[in-house]
Amino acid sequence: MSDFQAIAVEFVKHYYNTFDTDRASLVGLYRDNSMLTFQGSQHLGAASIAEKLVSLPFQKVQHHYNPPDAQPTANGIIVLVTGQLAVDGDADRPLGFSQAFHLVQDPAGQWFVYNDIFNLVVV
Amino acid sequence: MSDFQAIAVEFVKHYYNTFDTDRASLVGLYRDNSMLTFQGSQHLGAASIAEKLVSLPFQKVQHHYNPPDAQPTANGIIVLVTGQLAVDGDADRPLGFSQAFHLVQDPAGQWFVYNDIFNLVVV
Repeated sequence: MSDFQAIAVEFVKHYYNTFDTDRASLVGLYRDNSMLTFQGSQHLGAASIAEKLVSLPFQKVQHHYNPPDAQPTANGIIVLVTGQLAVDGDADRPLGFSQAFHLVQDPAGQWFVYNDIFNLVVV
Repeated sequence: MSDFQAIAVEFVKHYYNTFDTDRASLVGLYRDNSMLTFQGSQHLGAASIAEKLVSLPFQKVQHHYNPPDAQPTANGIIVLVTGQLAVDGDADRPLGFSQAFHLVQDPAGQWFVYNDIFNLVVV
């Protein structure tokens, strides 16, 4: 398994674990120049992005996802995840989702989310 | 509408029009360093990518997609598309799909697909 694939797998696991257990902590995965497009709503910077994610109108959420696909870019790793999520215990009505991440490294060498695009998938 | 969004919209329209009418011509949208991950199958370079796309086991395909979301990267534009596709006239059983593109410019200033990750979405 190449490095970028291993990094993507590890990141995705950490991201959704954090999302499902302590959404506010997601702020640490973004930086001031990070971008989020969430169902068409655009947010710039870690603080604004975390505010959006924390304000989503559900208490509990659980993500189930397929193994992510990853590719290297000039300065990072692009990751595409598809899966299902269940909110507030409504496991009988999972919602399909698709999320693209672009991970890059900060000056200290730590990976963070530079680009993040999330969409529910209605088939 | 910012430039990157307009470029993404125009690209996506051109890409799926070409896919649905003349798949072999997609080769012109990739370069020798382009990457495609198609349902987990990895391909490097325009020739290999076009060969994969042309060999897909259907004669006719039609993509229907939602307005794409786009964000700038350090050297390009990341685009996420979700939609449905119908193959060989089977319009009653559309398949959900999700596709992430990373568009960058070649030395002549022409946009091409550097990263391409495609997945069917089963909900």
